[in-house]
Amino acid sequence: MKTNLHGAVMLLTVFGCVLLLVSERVFPVAQPHVPVADSGRVQEHLVALAHFGADREGGGVSRVAFSDADVAGRAYVKRLMQAAGLEVRIDAAGNLIGHRAGTDQKLPTIVMGSHTDSVPHGGNYDGDVGVMGGIEVAQQLHDRHLTLRHALEVVDFTDEEGGLVGSRAMAGELSPATLDLVNTSGRSVRDGIRALGGDPDAVGTARRDPGELAAYLELHIEQGGTLERTHTDIGIVAGIVGIHWWEATITGVANHAGTTPMDQRHDALVAASELVLAVNAAATDLPGRQVATVGRISAEPGAPNVIPGRVVLSVEVRDLDAARIEAVFERIRTRAAEIARIRSVSIEFRDLEATAVPALTDPRIQRIIGGAAHELGLTSMAMPSGAGHDAQDIARIAPIGMIFVPSVGGISHSPHEYTAPADITNGVNVLMHSVLAIDAGKLDR
Amino acid sequence: MKTNLHGAVMLLTVFGCVLLLVSERVFPVAQPHVPVADSGRVQEHLVALAHFGADREGGGVSRVAFSDADVAGRAYVKRLMQAAGLEVRIDAAGNLIGHRAGTDQKLPTIVMGSHTDSVPHGGNYDGDVGVMGGIEVAQQLHDRHLTLRHALEVVDFTDEEGGLVGSRAMAGELSPATLDLVNTSGRSVRDGIRALGGDPDAVGTARRDPGELAAYLELHIEQGGTLERTHTDIGIVAGIVGIHWWEATITGVANHAGTTPMDQRHDALVAASELVLAVNAAATDLPGRQVATVGRISAEPGAPNVIPGRVVLSVEVRDLDAARIEAVFERIRTRAAEIARIRSVSIEFRDLEATAVPALTDPRIQRIIGGAAHELGLTSMAMPSGAGHDAQDIARIAPIGMIFVPSVGGISHSPHEYTAPADITNGVNVLMHSVLAIDAGKLDR
Repeated sequence: MKTNLHGAVMLLTVFGCVLLLVSERVFPVAQPHVPVADSGRVQEHLVALAHFGADREGGGVSRVAFSDADVAGRAYVKRLMQAAGLEVRIDAAGNLIGHRAGTDQKLPTIVMGSHTDSVPHGGNYDGDVGVMGGIEVAQQLHDRHLTLRHALEVVDFTDEEGGLVGSRAMAGELSPATLDLVNTSGRSVRDGIRALGGDPDAVGTARRDPGELAAYLELHIEQGGTLERTHTDIGIVAGIVGIHWWEATITGVANHAGTTPMDQRHDALVAASELVLAVNAAATDLPGRQVATVGRISAEPGAPNVIPGRVVLSVEVRDLDAARIEAVFERIRTRAAEIARIRSVSIEFRDLEATAVPALTDPRIQRIIGGAAHELGLTSMAMPSGAGHDAQDIARIAPIGMIFVPSVGGISHSPHEYTAPADITNGVNVLMHSVLAIDAGKLDR
Repeated sequence: MKTNLHGAVMLLTVFGCVLLLVSERVFPVAQPHVPVADSGRVQEHLVALAHFGADREGGGVSRVAFSDADVAGRAYVKRLMQAAGLEVRIDAAGNLIGHRAGTDQKLPTIVMGSHTDSVPHGGNYDGDVGVMGGIEVAQQLHDRHLTLRHALEVVDFTDEEGGLVGSRAMAGELSPATLDLVNTSGRSVRDGIRALGGDPDAVGTARRDPGELAAYLELHIEQGGTLERTHTDIGIVAGIVGIHWWEATITGVANHAGTTPMDQRHDALVAASELVLAVNAAATDLPGRQVATVGRISAEPGAPNVIPGRVVLSVEVRDLDAARIEAVFERIRTRAAEIARIRSVSIEFRDLEATAVPALTDPRIQRIIGGAAHELGLTSMAMPSGAGHDAQDIARIAPIGMIFVPSVGGISHSPHEYTAPADITNGVNVLMHSVLAIDAGKLDR
């Protein structure tokens, strides 16, 4: 009996150790049919993509949409898609789409996407991680000969940084005037789409009907510092904030800085300074995650010895809730009226075209992403996306979900942008689990 | 007796009426030898001068130093000087000098001066009034064949608006580097002086020795609104304020305006706005007439959707007392340190070369000007000059005095600059009385 008891204790101990091991991050739960992302391959692809448009100085990348670097980079992405067994096409908007058939042709398509264009002197993670992550999911399914019921697509969208061009076209929301815009590549959007293999004259055909897409999933770096600061592996994006821009003009009286006594001044910059503080306070004094920013200011005539007579500044407010954006602006406007009265100036606001309305993610997909993170032993938190993404346009035609991974220092749109390989791999695994969960019908339950 | 008494009363009454009349402004006290300015002629000369460099639109003048308009305008001024019996020469710095000999060659020269160059799109009073006023004084003496004990000069200084070039040279204070500066005329100071008939290579010879000048008097428009607001005819300038410039650099962290929560920001513009208000408060919170101004501001990177990481702004403080300028700046610096700590940014001040140290006018000349105004039945008040003038340089080599006349609306360096003819005539008469008083030896008593 003693020996038997000893043997049973040994068995239990070994079993306990196995349990401990599988609960560790380094050993994701080995569910049947759920492959694990190849961290080395994803890194290899990201490093290879970084060569297209690499900045010789500074270490970042300038792969601006429609530039030669963008065209060459997308040719590389196309090869990766093909290697992952995807059937590649380019739609009329220039979007690069890798398609994998499902077993049930009646089911709509599950789409994973992001972009590989960059801002000038940007980094190698914003956008790239989502495209390479999607390709890795397809490659894993391909390598293991796994079939899904739904068709699966990976999309590398056209010109995200210049105004979400490809995703807008896919949502049927691209304005014709956008085609005439010229970006720093020197090409117009029209010519750029042509350079990518699209057909700007038939851009309407890029539109996907609501119902065609089962779900849209985007893996992306956070571009903020919240995940890193809170030591959280995965951000479950609750929505992409709406953005509203105003231009404020403060008009006082320009006058001689030597001969005009302090009590006789109508100093537009003093009033503008109070307005900048009011914009800041309007966001910080309310509970919630809304942000308000003055990023641009100019004072005229702009000489050290002349009291400024006119100041123009930008006001930007972002939040997940459009009503809250309005509430923040109301506080700003009320305070501006007081400032104008006290400082003897006028303050006018011009409502600029709202860059974006808030786009909420699908609560079911949020739960699926949270569940996937939990299965993988990863910590997660719900959070808004303060930046715009292709997902916000696709939200008009499909349920969307976004997976964030930590950005070191919260830095983005900079050569210093960085996300650790382990964090990227976590994100790809969450993406893979989420795709499989949706394919298994979890969206409908 | 009754008739005789009646006659005596009548005589007394007539005498009283005469006394009343001469005390009125419209009938300046008819002192022996004191002529009265010809208001029509002064206006005629100002209007004629306004044609040189007249702006077709806007009604102002762009007679920037060394421009063709300046060269032509000074040729006109030279003809006026000659018509007033002055012997004209141009010194090495290009200063146009009209000279009238005195009866006592041992006595130093009484100098009246100002300038006829303008800022771009300026007005027709700043500077012009002092030169035309001086010429009118000389013309009156010439027309009436009046001789003075002292030699008398009228000076039209070179390039006042671009840095007091002519008066600095006369004080022996022109820095050699100034000769290389190029102004909006497109000419360097060196070439410009040559164009005016000066000799830039011998600019040192323009220097006048202390003791050569008995007094320097400058008639000028106030360029502020104090005389108009207080219904005062004449400003007796107590001194020309010192001007100190600093450049403040506020360094925070540029970041994404969407993904950076309010409590994680190091917003350079929010801190800069607090600094602008601190500069304003530092001047207004102290008793006195000191002024402090932020006239120039720039925020980088300057996009509506990026939190500014760096702001550079100008700080200017003016006062008659250099110690008070320092005291105001100390308040600014102390507050800046608090702002930097609270807003998590750094604030650095760079001390720019002080544009000017305070220049006090001679108290005896202040009394002479006040006495002249009183004799003429004009109201007067002591006041600082918030703007710089040629007088501030000449203060290094001679006792100086300045006479201000009202500026409508306090407007200057603008096409809207205006001083009423009656006010100009008052100023010329005060200038004339003051010259005669100094010539009569009142400075020595």
